[in-house]
Amino acid sequence: MKKSIILDPHPRTRELIFREADFLRLQSLAKIHECRKEKMPADQLDEFLPEASAVIGQTELSRKRLEKAVNLKAIVNVEGNFLQNIDYAYCFERCIYVLNAGIAFSQAVSEMALGFALCLARGLAEGDRRFRTGQEVYGAKSNTESFLLKKKKVGIIGLGNIGRTLIRLLEPFECLIRVYDPWLPDNYIKDFSLIPADLEQLLKSSQIIFVLAGATTENRAMLGGKELSLIGKEALFILVSRASLVDFKALTDLLSRGRFRAAIDVFPQEPFPENHPLRQLDNVLLSAHRAGSVQEAYKLMGEMTVDDLSLIFQGLPPVRLQRADRETVTQMSSKPIKG
Amino acid sequence: MKKSIILDPHPRTRELIFREADFLRLQSLAKIHECRKEKMPADQLDEFLPEASAVIGQTELSRKRLEKAVNLKAIVNVEGNFLQNIDYAYCFERCIYVLNAGIAFSQAVSEMALGFALCLARGLAEGDRRFRTGQEVYGAKSNTESFLLKKKKVGIIGLGNIGRTLIRLLEPFECLIRVYDPWLPDNYIKDFSLIPADLEQLLKSSQIIFVLAGATTENRAMLGGKELSLIGKEALFILVSRASLVDFKALTDLLSRGRFRAAIDVFPQEPFPENHPLRQLDNVLLSAHRAGSVQEAYKLMGEMTVDDLSLIFQGLPPVRLQRADRETVTQMSSKPIKG
Amino acid sequence: MKKSIILDPHPRTRELIFREADFLRLQSLAKIHECRKEKMPADQLDEFLPEASAVIGQTELSRKRLEKAVNLKAIVNVEGNFLQNIDYAYCFERCIYVLNAGIAFSQAVSEMALGFALCLARGLAEGDRRFRTGQEVYGAKSNTESFLLKKKKVGIIGLGNIGRTLIRLLEPFECLIRVYDPWLPDNYIKDFSLIPADLEQLLKSSQIIFVLAGATTENRAMLGGKELSLIGKEALFILVSRASLVDFKALTDLLSRGRFRAAIDVFPQEPFPENHPLRQLDNVLLSAHRAGSVQEAYKLMGEMTVDDLSLIFQGLPPVRLQRADRETVTQMSSKPIKG
Amino acid sequence: MKKSIILDPHPRTRELIFREADFLRLQSLAKIHECRKEKMPADQLDEFLPEASAVIGQTELSRKRLEKAVNLKAIVNVEGNFLQNIDYAYCFERCIYVLNAGIAFSQAVSEMALGFALCLARGLAEGDRRFRTGQEVYGAKSNTESFLLKKKKVGIIGLGNIGRTLIRLLEPFECLIRVYDPWLPDNYIKDFSLIPADLEQLLKSSQIIFVLAGATTENRAMLGGKELSLIGKEALFILVSRASLVDFKALTDLLSRGRFRAAIDVFPQEPFPENHPLRQLDNVLLSAHRAGSVQEAYKLMGEMTVDDLSLIFQGLPPVRLQRADRETVTQMSSKPIKG
Repeated sequence: MKKSIILDPHPRTRELIFREADFLRLQSLAKIHECRKEKMPADQLDEFLPEASAVIGQTELSRKRLEKAVNLKAIVNVEGNFLQNIDYAYCFERCIYVLNAGIAFSQAVSEMALGFALCLARGLAEGDRRFRTGQEVYGAKSNTESFLLKKKKVGIIGLGNIGRTLIRLLEPFECLIRVYDPWLPDNYIKDFSLIPADLEQLLKSSQIIFVLAGATTENRAMLGGKELSLIGKEALFILVSRASLVDFKALTDLLSRGRFRAAIDVFPQEPFPENHPLRQLDNVLLSAHRAGSVQEAYKLMGEMTVDDLSLIFQGLPPVRLQRADRETVTQMSSKPIKG
Repeated sequence: MKKSIILDPHPRTRELIFREADFLRLQSLAKIHECRKEKMPADQLDEFLPEASAVIGQTELSRKRLEKAVNLKAIVNVEGNFLQNIDYAYCFERCIYVLNAGIAFSQAVSEMALGFALCLARGLAEGDRRFRTGQEVYGAKSNTESFLLKKKKVGIIGLGNIGRTLIRLLEPFECLIRVYDPWLPDNYIKDFSLIPADLEQLLKSSQIIFVLAGATTENRAMLGGKELSLIGKEALFILVSRASLVDFKALTDLLSRGRFRAAIDVFPQEPFPENHPLRQLDNVLLSAHRAGSVQEAYKLMGEMTVDDLSLIFQGLPPVRLQRADRETVTQMSSKPIKG
Repeated sequence: MKKSIILDPHPRTRELIFREADFLRLQSLAKIHECRKEKMPADQLDEFLPEASAVIGQTELSRKRLEKAVNLKAIVNVEGNFLQNIDYAYCFERCIYVLNAGIAFSQAVSEMALGFALCLARGLAEGDRRFRTGQEVYGAKSNTESFLLKKKKVGIIGLGNIGRTLIRLLEPFECLIRVYDPWLPDNYIKDFSLIPADLEQLLKSSQIIFVLAGATTENRAMLGGKELSLIGKEALFILVSRASLVDFKALTDLLSRGRFRAAIDVFPQEPFPENHPLRQLDNVLLSAHRAGSVQEAYKLMGEMTVDDLSLIFQGLPPVRLQRADRETVTQMSSKPIKG
Repeated sequence: MKKSIILDPHPRTRELIFREADFLRLQSLAKIHECRKEKMPADQLDEFLPEASAVIGQTELSRKRLEKAVNLKAIVNVEGNFLQNIDYAYCFERCIYVLNAGIAFSQAVSEMALGFALCLARGLAEGDRRFRTGQEVYGAKSNTESFLLKKKKVGIIGLGNIGRTLIRLLEPFECLIRVYDPWLPDNYIKDFSLIPADLEQLLKSSQIIFVLAGATTENRAMLGGKELSLIGKEALFILVSRASLVDFKALTDLLSRGRFRAAIDVFPQEPFPENHPLRQLDNVLLSAHRAGSVQEAYKLMGEMTVDDLSLIFQGLPPVRLQRADRETVTQMSSKPIKG
C-alpha cells in the first residue's frame, strides 16, 4: 500500500512552500491528503491519520489523535515556531520525528541582520530620507557617526541556526564576536572561534548587538531597562528574532533619548500602534516583520521537507530539517502566525 | 642632516588624516613643513622643496619645481584620485615614488556597496519610509520583490582595490561573480575564482551590478542608454565609484520607468539639482557621496603614509600605499575634491 | 541525592580520555563509579545501574539491564564505533541518549588525510627514502609525477563528520569536490557547495579519492576490483575510514601493477601480514591505523562528554557529541577495538 | 613594424615554460628570437637587442648593452632569483620593467611546506619506513609525539609570495601565526590578521616554523646556533626557501641531538654530501630541492609572462609577474640555478 501524507499547512499554502518540482517529488513519495482553504477539519484528520506516515503543518495532535496515528513517522512543522498543540512527549516515546523547517529562514534573516547593521552603521536610510527632501549632506560631514564593521566588537544573543549562518556572513569583517547563550557550553561556542560571554559583559562591550534567540517561556523580557542601559552610545541594537525578549517600553524610552541606534523587525503587537513614538526616531530603522519571509526561504522549506520525508520513508534519518529536542520543545512560546 | 617632509594636504587637514600617534611617528622620521589653512603658497614650496624628501598632498609639481627637488623620494597623494598637476613622466625617470592613499577607502566603500545591495534587495529604506507614515506591510506580502544575495549572479565593473575588497565580503554569499575590466587579463580575474566577461554579457546576466571603476579619459559615459537597457528587471545597479562612467540622463530615464533598482552614491554635480526626478523614485536609494569618507578611512591613509615613508627613508620599497603606474596615471580624470 | 555515572571506558583509560580539569568537572556533576583495570564486572554494573544517570563506555546493556536502569539518561560511547551490544531500540523508546564521541577524531583524521594527499602528490616519503640511500634526484627531474592539489578534482566517499571537516581543510585549494553518499540527499551535498555524484562517476573523474565512510552491514567491499579499476592512472586513493569497504585483494593487485597511488591507514587484519606485497610498493604510503589516535583527539572526547552530560543533567539537549540515529545505529558493523 | 622578443631561457627550455597555447599567444604578440640549446651568444644578442621590446631569461645585460636596447620595455626573469648580471639602476631610470616569474612557484612551495608540516607532525614518512620493515606500531602507541596543526602557534620567517600563499592554506587550521620580516611594517602584517614578532620571540614560541625568506646579502646564516637553540623540543622546523639563511653545521648538530624535528628542501651544496649525518636522522624529512619545481608552476610562469607582455605592449601596466624593487633587487644573492 502506498504511503500517505497529510498536508495541512494553513495559514501557509501549498504553492508558497513547494516549487512545482518539489511537490511532484512529494507526490511520488506518497498519496497527499490536503485541505487547501483552511486548517484541516477534525473529521478529515480523524479519517486520514490512521494511515498517514507524515503530517506537514501545525496540526493539533493530541495524545488521543496520535494514538490512532499508528503509521505516523514524522511531523513537519513548516514554521519557525513550535506550537504547544501537540503531545510532544508521546511523539518522542513513539520515536515519531518532530521536525522544524524554521532553519529554511536562516539565510534570509541573517542577510537582513547584516543589512540592518550596515544600514545603521552608515546611516543609509537616514541619508536617503534627507536626499528626498533636499537636505542631504555630502561626504565626510555626513559621516561623523558612521563606522566600519571591520574588526568591531559584535555580540550575539542566541547562537542557533540564524546565529550560525550570520557568523559566516560576518567572517570577512574580522569582528571579535561574543556570544551569550545559556543553552550552550563554552567549548561549543569556542569551536566556532567565538567568545562565550555573559549577558552583561556582551551588552557593555559590543558595538553591534544581534538579538537572535527564539522566544521561550524563560527568556521573556530578558532585555529589560537595566540590561538595555548597558548598551554603549555608539552601539547598534538589532532585533530580528522575537519581540518578547525585549521590554519594549524600556527600549522605546532609551531610543527616544538617543542612547543608541536600533533596527527592529519584530514587535509586541503587529500591526504596531499607529502613533507609537518609535515610528519617528532618526536613530531607529523599522521593518515590518520582513526578515525571514522571502519567497526563496519558503521554497527551501518545501525542498527540505521533501528531502527529509524521502529519507525517512527509506528508513534513513532526516538530515535537512531540524529535529525538535525533547527538553526544549515545550519551552517554545511563540504565538502562532496569522494568515 | 635630518630629512624633511612637506605636508600640504589641503583641503584635507592634518587632524583628519593622522591619528596623534601616527603624526608623532611622522615627526620622528623628518622635520615637517606644513601650511595648515590653505594650499601651501608657492614661495614656501620653493623654499622647502630643495631639501624635502617627501611631499604629502596634491601639490602642483611641475618639471621645473621637481628639478629643484633634488632630494625628493616620494609624493604621497592623500586622495583617491591623481590630479594632472604633476610631471609624472619626470617622476618615473627620477625614480620618485608616486603613491596613492586611495586604497585606504577600499574597506569603507566595499562595506557601503554591500550595504546598498542588501538594502535594495530587501527594500530596507522603503520599508522604513512606509513604517514612518503608518503604511507598512507585514511579512511575506511586503517581500514580493525581495531576494537573497546567496548564490546570485553578480557583475563587477572594474576590479581594482575596491573590487578586490568587495569580493572578500561577498565570499560567504557564494555568488557567481563576473568581472569586466579592460585593463586586466582573463587569467588574473580567474585567479580570484571570478569569471571574466565582456560588458554586455555582464549587464545582461547579473542580478547585482557594482560599478567600481575609477574615472579615466577613456571610460567617460561607457554606461550609456544602450548599455543600461541591458540590465534586467529584477537587477540592482550600484554606483559607488565615479559618476562620469554613467550617462545620468539615460539612467534617470530608465529608473523613472522602473526598469531596475539602483543605489547611487556619486553624481555628475554635487550638490545634485534640487528638483531632479531621481530624488523621488521608490526604486532608488540615494547617498550623498558618503561611501568612502568615514573617519577610519582617513586615519588609515595617514597610518599607511607614515609606514611607507618610514620604509622609503630606510632604503626599502613601500608596501602599503598604491604606486602609480606610468601608463595609467595620466589617464586618471577625476576632478579635484572640494574642501 | 547526587547523580551517579558509571565510567567503564575499557580498553580506553580514564587518563587517556579526560584531562584533569575535565575529570574534576565530571566529578562535580555526579558520583563516579568506575572500574580501572578491565571492563566493569557484571555484579558491579548490576549494583550501580539502578541509580546511574549515565554510562560512559562500550558497556553491554541488554534490555534486561536497561530496564533496571530507571534513572539512565545517556550512554556515551567513547569510541568511533557503535557496538551491537546494546538494545538500542529500547534506548530510543525510553528517550535515553545514545551518544558517540567519534566526532572528536574528525580533525585528526582529516589532517592526516590531507597529509596523505600532499605526501602522495609530491612523493614526500619516497623522496625521503631515496635521500637516505643517497639516491635522491634534485629539482624538476624528481617531479615528473608530482602535481598540485590546487583546483584538482576530488572525490569524497562518505560525507560524515570527517568529510565535513576535511572539506574545510580543502577549501583554500579550490578543488572541485564530488561526493558519493547514499544516505544523503543531493541538496544536502549541494548546500556545502559540493557536487553529488554516483560512485562510478566519482571514481573515474577524481584525481584524489578519499574513502571516509564508516563500515556498515551494507557497504562491505563496496570498492571491489570493478570499482577500483575505474580509478585513473594519475589518481591518489586515500583510505582512512574502514578497511572493510575495500576488497583488499583487488586493491593489492591493482597497486602492484602501478595502476594508481594509494595511502592506506586501515587494514583487514591488524597487525597486517608481515610478508604482504603492499609493504614494498613505491606507489603506496602505509600507516598503521594512526589517523585518529592522537592525544588531542582523546582529550577532546572527554571534554565533549563532560560538556554534554552537564547539559543533559541540567535538562538541556546535548550539543557536542553525535547522537546515534535509530535507523543506522544497528547497521554499524565495526569490530571492537583492542586494548 | 612588428615587435620582437628575445627568448633566452637557458637553462630552462621553451617547452618547460610555455604550454603550446601560451607560446602561440606569445608569437602573436611579437617575432621571437630564440636560442634553443644554450645561453644566447653575445653576437646574436647584440644583433637582436636594438629592436627587441622584451627579453625573457636571465640574460646578461650590462649598461652598454642596455643602451643599445632602445626599444626595450621589459625584462622577464623566468626564475625565482635575481642575478646580479643586469644594470638594474639603469633599467629603473629608463622605466624598463624588471619582472620576476618566481611568484609562479608560490602555490607549489606552499603546498609542499604544508605537506612537510603534516608529515612531520604525524610521523608519516617514519611510519611508512617502519611499515616497510615490519616494525610498524599500531594506533595510539605510535602517536605519542604526534600533534594536530589545529590552533597551534606558527612562525613564518619572511612574508613574501610564498608566505602569503601559505597563510591561505593554513587558514582552516586556525593557527596563531607570528611573522618575522624586517622589510615589512607591523601594520602590513596585522592587515593579514598575523602577529608581527621579532626573530627570537618567534623561534621560542612557535611549534611550527616555516623559513620562507629569500636569500639576500644581509640574511646569510641569520639562523645560527644561537637562534636555532631557541626552538622548542616539540617544534617543527621547515626550511623551503634558501639554505644560505641557516648555519647548516649548527642545524645538523642540534638535529643529531634530537632537539627538534625538521624538513629540509634546500642544501648548501646540491647534491648534498653522500655521508652527511643528516641523511640518517629519524627526526628529519629530506627533500632534494623539490618544493617548487613542478610542471604546473613552470607553465604558470609562461602564462604570466605572456599575459604581462601583452599588457605592456598595449601600453598597460603588468599585473601578474612581480616587479623588482629598486632597493632590494641588488641585495638578492641567490646563486644561478644549474641546468
